[in-house]
Amino acid sequence: MKKVQLNPMGWMSQLSQAEVARLQDASDSELFTMFRNCSLAVLNSGVDEDNFETLFAPYESFDIRLVRRERGVKIELINPPEVAFVDDNLVRGVHEHLFAVLRDLLYMGDKYDFLHQHSPADGAQITDMVFDMLRHAKALEGNDGVNTIVCWGGHSINQVEYKYTKEVGYQLGLRDMNICTGCGPGAMKGPMKGAAIGHAKQRHKSGRYVGISEPSIIAAEPPNAIVNELIIMPDIEKRLEAFVRLAHGIVIFPGGVGTAEELLYLLGILMNERNDQQPFPVILTGPAGSEEYFEAVDTFIAETLGKEAQKKYQIIVNDPEEVARSLCKGLEKVKKYRGAMGDAFSFNWSLKIERDFQQPFIPTHESMAGLQLDHHQSRSDLASNLRRAFSGIVAGNVKAEGIKQIKENGPFEITGDRTLMKHVDVLLESFVKQHRMKLPGSAYEPCYLVK
Amino acid sequence: MKKVQLNPMGWMSQLSQAEVARLQDASDSELFTMFRNCSLAVLNSGVDEDNFETLFAPYESFDIRLVRRERGVKIELINPPEVAFVDDNLVRGVHEHLFAVLRDLLYMGDKYDFLHQHSPADGAQITDMVFDMLRHAKALEGNDGVNTIVCWGGHSINQVEYKYTKEVGYQLGLRDMNICTGCGPGAMKGPMKGAAIGHAKQRHKSGRYVGISEPSIIAAEPPNAIVNELIIMPDIEKRLEAFVRLAHGIVIFPGGVGTAEELLYLLGILMNERNDQQPFPVILTGPAGSEEYFEAVDTFIAETLGKEAQKKYQIIVNDPEEVARSLCKGLEKVKKYRGAMGDAFSFNWSLKIERDFQQPFIPTHESMAGLQLDHHQSRSDLASNLRRAFSGIVAGNVKAEGIKQIKENGPFEITGDRTLMKHVDVLLESFVKQHRMKLPGSAYEPCYLVK
Amino acid sequence: MKKVQLNPMGWMSQLSQAEVARLQDASDSELFTMFRNCSLAVLNSGVDEDNFETLFAPYESFDIRLVRRERGVKIELINPPEVAFVDDNLVRGVHEHLFAVLRDLLYMGDKYDFLHQHSPADGAQITDMVFDMLRHAKALEGNDGVNTIVCWGGHSINQVEYKYTKEVGYQLGLRDMNICTGCGPGAMKGPMKGAAIGHAKQRHKSGRYVGISEPSIIAAEPPNAIVNELIIMPDIEKRLEAFVRLAHGIVIFPGGVGTAEELLYLLGILMNERNDQQPFPVILTGPAGSEEYFEAVDTFIAETLGKEAQKKYQIIVNDPEEVARSLCKGLEKVKKYRGAMGDAFSFNWSLKIERDFQQPFIPTHESMAGLQLDHHQSRSDLASNLRRAFSGIVAGNVKAEGIKQIKENGPFEITGDRTLMKHVDVLLESFVKQHRMKLPGSAYEPCYLVK
Amino acid sequence: MKKVQLNPMGWMSQLSQAEVARLQDASDSELFTMFRNCSLAVLNSGVDEDNFETLFAPYESFDIRLVRRERGVKIELINPPEVAFVDDNLVRGVHEHLFAVLRDLLYMGDKYDFLHQHSPADGAQITDMVFDMLRHAKALEGNDGVNTIVCWGGHSINQVEYKYTKEVGYQLGLRDMNICTGCGPGAMKGPMKGAAIGHAKQRHKSGRYVGISEPSIIAAEPPNAIVNELIIMPDIEKRLEAFVRLAHGIVIFPGGVGTAEELLYLLGILMNERNDQQPFPVILTGPAGSEEYFEAVDTFIAETLGKEAQKKYQIIVNDPEEVARSLCKGLEKVKKYRGAMGDAFSFNWSLKIERDFQQPFIPTHESMAGLQLDHHQSRSDLASNLRRAFSGIVAGNVKAEGIKQIKENGPFEITGDRTLMKHVDVLLESFVKQHRMKLPGSAYEPCYLVK
Repeated sequence: MKKVQLNPMGWMSQLSQAEVARLQDASDSELFTMFRNCSLAVLNSGVDEDNFETLFAPYESFDIRLVRRERGVKIELINPPEVAFVDDNLVRGVHEHLFAVLRDLLYMGDKYDFLHQHSPADGAQITDMVFDMLRHAKALEGNDGVNTIVCWGGHSINQVEYKYTKEVGYQLGLRDMNICTGCGPGAMKGPMKGAAIGHAKQRHKSGRYVGISEPSIIAAEPPNAIVNELIIMPDIEKRLEAFVRLAHGIVIFPGGVGTAEELLYLLGILMNERNDQQPFPVILTGPAGSEEYFEAVDTFIAETLGKEAQKKYQIIVNDPEEVARSLCKGLEKVKKYRGAMGDAFSFNWSLKIERDFQQPFIPTHESMAGLQLDHHQSRSDLASNLRRAFSGIVAGNVKAEGIKQIKENGPFEITGDRTLMKHVDVLLESFVKQHRMKLPGSAYEPCYLVK
Repeated sequence: MKKVQLNPMGWMSQLSQAEVARLQDASDSELFTMFRNCSLAVLNSGVDEDNFETLFAPYESFDIRLVRRERGVKIELINPPEVAFVDDNLVRGVHEHLFAVLRDLLYMGDKYDFLHQHSPADGAQITDMVFDMLRHAKALEGNDGVNTIVCWGGHSINQVEYKYTKEVGYQLGLRDMNICTGCGPGAMKGPMKGAAIGHAKQRHKSGRYVGISEPSIIAAEPPNAIVNELIIMPDIEKRLEAFVRLAHGIVIFPGGVGTAEELLYLLGILMNERNDQQPFPVILTGPAGSEEYFEAVDTFIAETLGKEAQKKYQIIVNDPEEVARSLCKGLEKVKKYRGAMGDAFSFNWSLKIERDFQQPFIPTHESMAGLQLDHHQSRSDLASNLRRAFSGIVAGNVKAEGIKQIKENGPFEITGDRTLMKHVDVLLESFVKQHRMKLPGSAYEPCYLVK
Repeated sequence: MKKVQLNPMGWMSQLSQAEVARLQDASDSELFTMFRNCSLAVLNSGVDEDNFETLFAPYESFDIRLVRRERGVKIELINPPEVAFVDDNLVRGVHEHLFAVLRDLLYMGDKYDFLHQHSPADGAQITDMVFDMLRHAKALEGNDGVNTIVCWGGHSINQVEYKYTKEVGYQLGLRDMNICTGCGPGAMKGPMKGAAIGHAKQRHKSGRYVGISEPSIIAAEPPNAIVNELIIMPDIEKRLEAFVRLAHGIVIFPGGVGTAEELLYLLGILMNERNDQQPFPVILTGPAGSEEYFEAVDTFIAETLGKEAQKKYQIIVNDPEEVARSLCKGLEKVKKYRGAMGDAFSFNWSLKIERDFQQPFIPTHESMAGLQLDHHQSRSDLASNLRRAFSGIVAGNVKAEGIKQIKENGPFEITGDRTLMKHVDVLLESFVKQHRMKLPGSAYEPCYLVK
Repeated sequence: MKKVQLNPMGWMSQLSQAEVARLQDASDSELFTMFRNCSLAVLNSGVDEDNFETLFAPYESFDIRLVRRERGVKIELINPPEVAFVDDNLVRGVHEHLFAVLRDLLYMGDKYDFLHQHSPADGAQITDMVFDMLRHAKALEGNDGVNTIVCWGGHSINQVEYKYTKEVGYQLGLRDMNICTGCGPGAMKGPMKGAAIGHAKQRHKSGRYVGISEPSIIAAEPPNAIVNELIIMPDIEKRLEAFVRLAHGIVIFPGGVGTAEELLYLLGILMNERNDQQPFPVILTGPAGSEEYFEAVDTFIAETLGKEAQKKYQIIVNDPEEVARSLCKGLEKVKKYRGAMGDAFSFNWSLKIERDFQQPFIPTHESMAGLQLDHHQSRSDLASNLRRAFSGIVAGNVKAEGIKQIKENGPFEITGDRTLMKHVDVLLESFVKQHRMKLPGSAYEPCYLVK
C-alpha cells in the first residue's frame, strides 16, 4: 500500500482549531465521498477520458484521508494514480489542485452546507456566496485587468476545431488576455494552450488559466495540464454564475448540449432588460467548415428566443485575429462601463441575474418532464427552461447521478410546444451526428426523448 | 470643510454586498464611535502624547464616514489632522492603518459582536477568534520564521532607557529578528527604530514592525512611525493573548503598571504546569542604572509568586548583544519544540492559557475592590488577580472609561493580605517616583489606594 | 513606407556616448548587413522555413537603421514583416530578440572585431570572449542551478520524432530542467515546447528556453516562438563552445550533418584526457523506430573514433522518462564535481578545449579538400577533422556563403582513408534518404562528393 | 590570527579568467594598498571618526588578500575589526561594500589605469568613464525616477544642524525622493536617516541611499550605516562629476571647505552659458540660527562670482517642508527638459562640463601657490580656481597625502587679488570658528596661509 502525505498549501495552511475540527468531522459525510472523487479526478489531470467509470475503475483501492496536525491538516493519499507523480514527488500543480478541492468542497462546503441545501435561498445571498468562494480562491485578485475571456465549447471536438481553439487562444494571449474555461479537454484546453504560447511571446509571465468545475462533472472533465487556478463550485448554476461574473468577454466554440446550456443561460440573462446597458462581448466562432454548425445554432436561437437574442452575440467564422480584435474593442467598453458604474473590475456585481437562473435544477424524470417549453412565457423564462432541459441531457450523458437514473428508468422525456420541440430535436440530432455528445469511440445512445 | 476620500486597500477592497451592508449598518453604532476615535489616533501617528483629551481636543470637527461603492467601501475623512498628509496626500502608511482599523473594529467587530459580549464565552473559541483576527490581518503569513520578538516596556521612559531599547532593537535587527510591540512611543518605539537600522545594514528588506493595540488605549499610544503592520484587538486580554501566541521570544524593558500587568500575565501562564515543557525565552533588560528597578521587580515576583516564577525569566543589565545572543539560543529551542510538537511556527497553539486569563476584566470600583489578593489560592491564580489589579490602574491612568470613573468616584481601592499589599504598594510607589505612570510634564495623582 | 521606432531594452538602454558612436559607425560596415539579415530572421520568428532566399525574398524593401538619442540608440524598422506585429505593436519577445542581435552583433562585434579576425588568437582568450558574451547576455545569471540541458538534433525531423522531442522536453521540464538549443524548428523547438508544459505543471515560473545561434545560420533557423533568451555567437566554433560550457548535460536527438558535427565536436573534447574526470552526461535518444538511426551513428563512431568514444554517451530508445531520470543522476555528479573543483556552476571553466576546436574553420573547396581524414593522427584530432568536414556540408546546405560557393564551383570534394570515407559516405547517404538534409518539399542535391 | 573568507557578490561573482588574473596581478601594486585602506574604512562603517590615523591605528595587523577560485575571486580578511561582524558573520551590507571597493578600485582601476593617469585625457572620455563606473555599479538602473537628491554639507556639524538635515531628509523621503551623499557622518548621514523614516511611512521599499566616495577621503569619512549603494570614484573631480550627473536636484547644508568646494564646482558649471537652459534645482538650507552662515556664503559668492551666480541657487532657512516642495517643483521641470532633449533620466548627459573642471588638481605647495585667484579671467574660470584652492585645503585637513605635505613643508600658501583674498580669508575664518574644519575634540591648526 502506497501512502503519500501532503503538506497544506496557501490558505489551507492557516486553519483555526475549529476549522480543522469541522473538516475532520466532514470525513464521514457524503461530502467526503465527493471530495474523494474530485481528488481522484484531479490526480488524473491531463488524462483524456470522459467516462468516469473507466477513469475510476483502476483506482478502487485509492483512498484519501485528512490527518490533523496542531498546525493544520495534511492530506494523505493511499494508492494514488502514478500519473500524478514525477519520481515519487507529486506534481506541484496537482498538489495545489488537491488543496483547491479541499478548500472548495470541504471548507466552503461546510461553511455553506452544500449537501443539505446546496446554496442559500435568496438571490443576493447566492451571489455573495459565489463572490466569497471566488475571493477565497484568490481568483479575484488577478482579475481586475479587464482581460479575462471565458471560453466555452465542447470537450469532444475534432482536430480542426481543436487547432482553431488554440489559434484563437494564441491571438488572445498575444493581446495579454487571460483564459477561463470549464477546465477539461477540447475547447476547454485549446484556448489555454494557445494563450500560453501567446503569453510566452509577449513575455507575459503572470498568465492566468482558470478552470471552474463542479463535483458532478469534474470526473468527466478532469482539469487539463495548463490550468493554474482551479475552482470547484457546488453546482452548475453557481458555476455558470461564477463564469459570467468573472468574465469580461465570452467566446463560444462549437460544442454540444453543455455548450448550448451555457449559451441559453447567458442569453437569458443578457435579455433581462435590467442588463440592457451592460456591454458584454459575446463571440461565437469556429474554423472554416463550422458555418453550418453556427447557422443551426443561430436559427435555433432566432426561432426560440427571437431577434433580440441574436443581437447579443456576434458570429465570426475562421478569423482568430478578428475574434481577438473584436474582443479588444468590447473590453474597452466594459472598462468604461464598470468605471462609470463604480462597479468592480474583478467581479461583475451590476449584472442582474434572476433567481430562476440561480436556483439549482435537479434533473429527474419528473422535473425534466415537467419543464414548461412553450411560448406562453417571457423569452427570458423560456431561455431558462430550455437551459434546464439541456442541463438535464448533460447530466444524463456524463454525470454519475444522471447516468444512474437513465439506467434505471430509461431516457428523460421532454415535451412541449410542437414547433419548439421540433427545433430542439433538430439541434440535438445535429449534435449526435457531429459526435459532440461524448468523446469518440462508442456509439451514442440518447438519454432523452423529445416528444 | 476639508473632505478626503480614500480607496479601500488590501482585503477591504474585496467585500461582498452583505459585508458592505453590515459595515454601513455599523455606522450608527457605538462601535462606530470607537472606530472614529481609533481613526483619529491613527491619523496622529507619531505624535508623542498620552493624554487622549489633549490629543483629540483640536479635532472636534473631525468626522469619518463610510461611502458605499458597488465595488466596496470608501472612507471619507472630514477635517482630518494635517499631520497625516504630505502635500494633500495621505501618507500611505496611515492610509493602510486606517483600513486596518476598519478591518479589525468594524468588520471583525461585526463578525464577533465586540460590543455586546466582547468575545466568545469558551476558551478554545477565544483562541480561535484571536487566531482568526491575526490571520485576517495577514500577521501570520510572515510569522513562520521563528524570529518575532515581542518587546514590552513603558511608554514613558527616560532618554538613557530609550536609547538602550534602540540598542537592543539594533542587535535584534542585525540578527534578522522582527519586532512586535504595543505600538506607541517609548519602549514600544525604540526597539523598532533600532531594528530598522539593523535590518538596513543586513539588507533585510522585509523587516516587520508589528503594532498590536486596543481601542481603549490606542488614543493614549498612537502607533509610532515605524509600525508597518497594525492590529487592533478588542480588549486587553485578547491583545495579550495575541502577543504571546505570535511571540517566539519576549523582551521586557523598564516600565510602569502596564508592563507589570504584562509580566504578571506572562508568568501566570508560564507557571501553568501544562506549559512546563514549552521553551519560551523571556528576558528582562535595561541600561546600566536600571539594576534597582529590576531588583524591585524581581523581589516583588519572588515575594508574591515565588522562586518558580523567577525561573521563567532571565535578567540582563546593560548588554544588548548578550540579550540578542541569548534570544538566538532560545529561538533554536522554540523551533525544535514546535517542530517536534507539530505546532505551527506562526502561532503558538500548544501554549495553554486558562480561561481566567482570557476572560475580560472590566475595572470598576466594585470589581477592583473585590479582587482576591492573598495566598489562599494557587500561584497562577494570584498572578491572574494581581494582573487584574494592575490592569485596573492602567485604565485609571490612561483609558477614557477608567479616567471617567476615577473622576466621579475617587481612586480605586485595592485590599488584601497585608504583606502582599505592602509589596504592591512599594512597587507602585517606585513607579510613581520614577515617572513611569504618565508622560512627564504633570504631577501624577494616583488613581488607586492600597489598603 | 512603414516605419517603426523601437526603444532600447535592457543593457542597450544604457550606453556611453562612445559606445553609441561606435554602433553608428558600424552602420556602414559589412557587419551591419549581417545585422540587417539577422534582424529580418528574428522578425520572422516562428516561421518554418530553412531557405533564407525564400524567407528574405518578400522583404527586399525591408531596412533597419540606428537612430541616435542622447540617452542611447533606437532601432528604426522600415517595412518590417507583418508577422512580428500584433495590432501594430511589435511582439515583446521579438523586440527583445532584436536588441539581443544588436547587442551581440554590433556591440560585441565592435568590441571583438568580429569581421576582421572573428575571434582572438589565443585559446584562453577565446574562452574569455565566449564567457564575456554569455555574461553580457545575462545568460550566466540564471545558469547556476545545474539544470541546463542542451538539446541538439535536426531541424528537419518527422512528426513522430518531433513529438518525441516534446515528450523528452516535458519530462525534463517536470524535473525543473531548462532547455538550451540552436533556436530553430524541429528538435530545437520540440524540447522547449514540452518543457514549457512541464514547467507550467510544476509552477516553475522562471523556465529558461535559451537559443544560441550564429549570423550565418539564423536565417535558415529563425528562433522559434518559445525562445526567451537569444544569443548570437559570431561563428559555429564559438557557438559550440558556448553550448558545452553552459550545459550541465546534453541530449542528442536524430538529425543530419549539423547534429553529427555537434556530436563529433563534443566527443573530440570529451576524449581529451584532461577531461577524463569530468562527469558530463550525454544521451542519444529517439522514438521507437529510430533504433537504426542510432545504430548507424554508433557504428560510425566505433569505426572512426573507437570504443573509448562510445563510452562517452548513452543511447536510450523510446523512453523519455528514463532520459530524464538518467540526466538527474548525471547532474548530481556534475554538481559534486564543480563544487569539489571550485568551478562555477554557471560556466564550465574546467572543461579543456584544445585550440583546434576553437579555431574557426572556413569551408572552401580548398580547405575541404585539404582535410586530413585518416588514422594517422590522434582520435581527438580525427574527431576535429571529421567535425570540420560535416561543418562544411552544413554550410553548403544552408549557409549563404557556402551555397554561393557550391553554385559557382560545384560540390565540395572530401578525400581520405578509403575505409574511413566509406563510413562517411554511408552515414551521409542515410541522412539524405531520411530527409535530414533540408526541410522536405524539394529533392536534395548533395553539396559534397566523397572520394 | 583570525581569517575570514568572503564569497564574491553581484557582478564580481562572474569574472573571466583574464579579469581574475588582472585582479591578482594588482595585488602587488600601489593600487592594492589603496584597496586595503578603503576596505579597512568600509569595515569601520558607522564609526564616527575623521582622523584616518586614529581609525587605522588599532588595525596594524589587518590585511586583505585575493584568493583565486576557478569561479572567481574570494576576499580573505586577516584580523578584521570586530565591529563589522555579528556573531562571527560579516554584516551583509559591509560584505556588499567590500566588493564594491574591489569592483571600483581594482577592477575599474585596472580598466582605466587609475594609478598612472587617474583618468583619460579627453573630456568626453572622462564623462564616458564616469558613466561606465556608475553603470557598472548599477547606480543608473534605479536612477530614472527623476527623484535623486544629492545632499552636500559638513561632516562635522552641530546637533541642531544634524537634526535639521534629518528633518529635510524626512520630508524628501515622504515625497519618495532618494538620497545621494558623500557617504560619511554629519550632513552626509542625516538626510539618509531621515529619508529612511519617510520611506518607511510611505511604504517605499526600494529607497536608495547612495554614497559616493574616493580613496583619499573614505578613511576620513567611512560610509554610514544607511548607505545601501557604495561607489568609489578615483578622485575628487570624477566624484563631483558623478554627483552632478546623477543628481536631479541638490541640497547644500552648512559645511566647511569641502562643502564650499562643492558649491564652487557646481556654480562654475551652471554658469557655463551652454547650461543656461538646464533646469537644475539647487537649495542652500539650514536650521534657524544658520542665517549668518548662509549670509556669509552668499556674500562671498556675490563678491567673487557675481549676481549671475547667486541666481543659480535658492536659500531657505528653517523650513524642511518648503525645501521638499520647492524641489518637487524643480524636478517637474527637470523631467520635462530631459524628455524634450531626449536626454536620459538616469544620467545628465547634456550638462556641459568644461575640461578645467574634470582635470584632476593635485594640491602641492607649488600648485596651490600657482593658482590664479583674481578677476582677470571669466567667472567660470575663477570658480574653477577657487574650487581648487578649497580642494587643496580639504586635502591638507583630512587627506593622507595632503597632511604629509603640510607636516613636511608647513601650510600651503594662497595668493591673489587682495580684495578677493580678503573674502576668502573671512570665509575660512568663519569655518574655523564654527568648528567646521574637523570633528570637535582638538584645536584646529590651519593648513593654509592666505596672503
